[in-house]
Amino acid sequence: MFVSEALGLSRHAGRKLEEKNILRRAFIPHPFFSDVIEALRFDRKFGEIEEGSLVAKTVNGVRVVRGFPKIRRALTLKPTIRKHFEKEVAVEEKMNGYNVRIARFGKNLYAMTRRGYICPYTTEKARELVNPDFFKDHPNLVLCCEAVGEESPFVPKSLYGIERLDFFVFDIREERTNTPLSIEEKIRLCEEYGLKYAPLLGVFDVRTAHEEVREIIERLGREGREGVVMKDPEMRLEPLKYTTSETNAGDLRYAFRYFNDYGKDFMFSRIVREGFQSFEFNESEEEFRERCLRLGMAILEPMVRSIREVAEGGKVVERVRLRFREFEVMNLFLEHMRSTGVDFEVADIRKDGGEIVIWIERIMRSTTDKIRNHLEGNPW
Amino acid sequence: MFVSEALGLSRHAGRKLEEKNILRRAFIPHPFFSDVIEALRFDRKFGEIEEGSLVAKTVNGVRVVRGFPKIRRALTLKPTIRKHFEKEVAVEEKMNGYNVRIARFGKNLYAMTRRGYICPYTTEKARELVNPDFFKDHPNLVLCCEAVGEESPFVPKSLYGIERLDFFVFDIREERTNTPLSIEEKIRLCEEYGLKYAPLLGVFDVRTAHEEVREIIERLGREGREGVVMKDPEMRLEPLKYTTSETNAGDLRYAFRYFNDYGKDFMFSRIVREGFQSFEFNESEEEFRERCLRLGMAILEPMVRSIREVAEGGKVVERVRLRFREFEVMNLFLEHMRSTGVDFEVADIRKDGGEIVIWIERIMRSTTDKIRNHLEGNPW
Repeated sequence: MFVSEALGLSRHAGRKLEEKNILRRAFIPHPFFSDVIEALRFDRKFGEIEEGSLVAKTVNGVRVVRGFPKIRRALTLKPTIRKHFEKEVAVEEKMNGYNVRIARFGKNLYAMTRRGYICPYTTEKARELVNPDFFKDHPNLVLCCEAVGEESPFVPKSLYGIERLDFFVFDIREERTNTPLSIEEKIRLCEEYGLKYAPLLGVFDVRTAHEEVREIIERLGREGREGVVMKDPEMRLEPLKYTTSETNAGDLRYAFRYFNDYGKDFMFSRIVREGFQSFEFNESEEEFRERCLRLGMAILEPMVRSIREVAEGGKVVERVRLRFREFEVMNLFLEHMRSTGVDFEVADIRKDGGEIVIWIERIMRSTTDKIRNHLEGNPW
Repeated sequence: MFVSEALGLSRHAGRKLEEKNILRRAFIPHPFFSDVIEALRFDRKFGEIEEGSLVAKTVNGVRVVRGFPKIRRALTLKPTIRKHFEKEVAVEEKMNGYNVRIARFGKNLYAMTRRGYICPYTTEKARELVNPDFFKDHPNLVLCCEAVGEESPFVPKSLYGIERLDFFVFDIREERTNTPLSIEEKIRLCEEYGLKYAPLLGVFDVRTAHEEVREIIERLGREGREGVVMKDPEMRLEPLKYTTSETNAGDLRYAFRYFNDYGKDFMFSRIVREGFQSFEFNESEEEFRERCLRLGMAILEPMVRSIREVAEGGKVVERVRLRFREFEVMNLFLEHMRSTGVDFEVADIRKDGGEIVIWIERIMRSTTDKIRNHLEGNPW
């Protein structure tokens, strides 16, 4: 099998990989993906190969693009920064969008989502927005980007002032080994090729970084932004993330709107973060009450809204707006969504200049059914 | 095996029961339990035999005491009451304690906890407080009680003004079939034998009951009481429970104090209840904010308290005060707790008249370890 060969697996490991049924189809064959002959993604971790890794047979041979590693989270700043980093820590803004890896196969760019799918929508945007010269000079590098903006199929946000979708590089990695470039080198290359990147907010001494980060977090919170990723400037240590209270609340707001479709772990972990932050920030009575009210509202408001919508005869849906250049790519994207198990309806579709704008409603079936069930008088 | 025989199981069912390893030891043999030769409890449901059912070989033969059935919960009042009940619904106060079944084996009373353990502490209290004449006249009936008060090993509460522990009958059931008496009959027997029982708050027409229950719930909430159980007066339909917002918050307060020792389902379900109640009670802006603040504080306050205690070098513990007449029974109870996997330390022990008062600290190991881990700078 080409995957085992590409990864240099032993026969034993190759058999295990098959037995465990870890490899899944990563794309829907289509002329839009003409450079890719076959592509498989890792649906789970396998040894040191991350979930979301992709192995593709392309027109120029087999390519391995490693999955983006999970970034662990600091629950406390002071002890965690001191324990984890050496001398200095670089603090970058963590933008709120979805994780995308962009690579070139054959003549075109390809964009992979976190789980290793080649996404038609994201690929079309990447080909439109990302300078391909970067890959001419650096064919073995992958751009790890946050895809943010209003026209996002997964995390639509208007807070960055991006009405459509854009990409912000946060890591540049060697595709086969996942080795990241240093922060300096990453920024140098982004500047050279005109690539946007997640803002570097400062490089701090580990002894005082927790104070700086706290100030940054409070400012980002007020601006509705997500948080930070703390990195070793040389990228030899694992990065760590830390988010604002407002983002924790925002995540909960989202999760409780669709409360039966989301994992309890998702909610629980965000609540626990608030506890640790509240403790470490040693806040005043007034600030603490505000945090409690924010948390309570983030939980109840969206839930009551969803219940009300079902009570009025509706369904709980998440509505997103997307834009395509090519009608064919739109259809390919819809097929892709369907094949990944997303339950949706097309709510509206319009021409805007030469482009197609489409509104999709993702139906939250489990939440809708659970609400309807209790509104009809069935006990839990 | 005496269990299969007592339940009249087929050979096939008997084998299945053994294979599934459902039966567990229900007590620690001791002279205090002199009427019981052997006793097994159902650790899970088996066919229609409830979890917590007990089969005991006693000095007067084999006895089967069925487990207390799980009471489902109404998430909405109006539609659920109308759908579920016929004509009338009896509303009783749901008291906040632990569920106990009391039966007589041989010459003495025995108290079983929800999971089917014969509990030394609860048994000592039952022998002290419950009129045994009831069982002379009704040997096949079981008293299903809420054990409430400050001196409770499981749910210590001072709100009922009970400084020690007391029993409130809420159901009387036939031990082998689990058939409950009607509410009228139950109250008649309680009055006859001087047994305390959970207050009956009214019997209402199903068409208007939701309004009455809402008023009751709001009043109970203000008084810090738990909620209600709604029953068919004849007990031919399954009862349903419904709790106050204050109790949901109180449960969350408890769960988040020990956040890593408690199941996420426990927290999640209590949060969802708040959403449905807020929707149905159609509250004012002001009431809604109060509910949100109550929810947020119920989550964050206890969590921050636990983090602070560990930061100051302590452990997260739950402290309970208990009282025993017999030193031997106290030791038996401590052995019982240890054998059920509870991790605790004796914090203090004193004489009070002829009795022994003991303070036990149950150690919440998982919560303590998780907090310590993050305070030491380890990421999640």
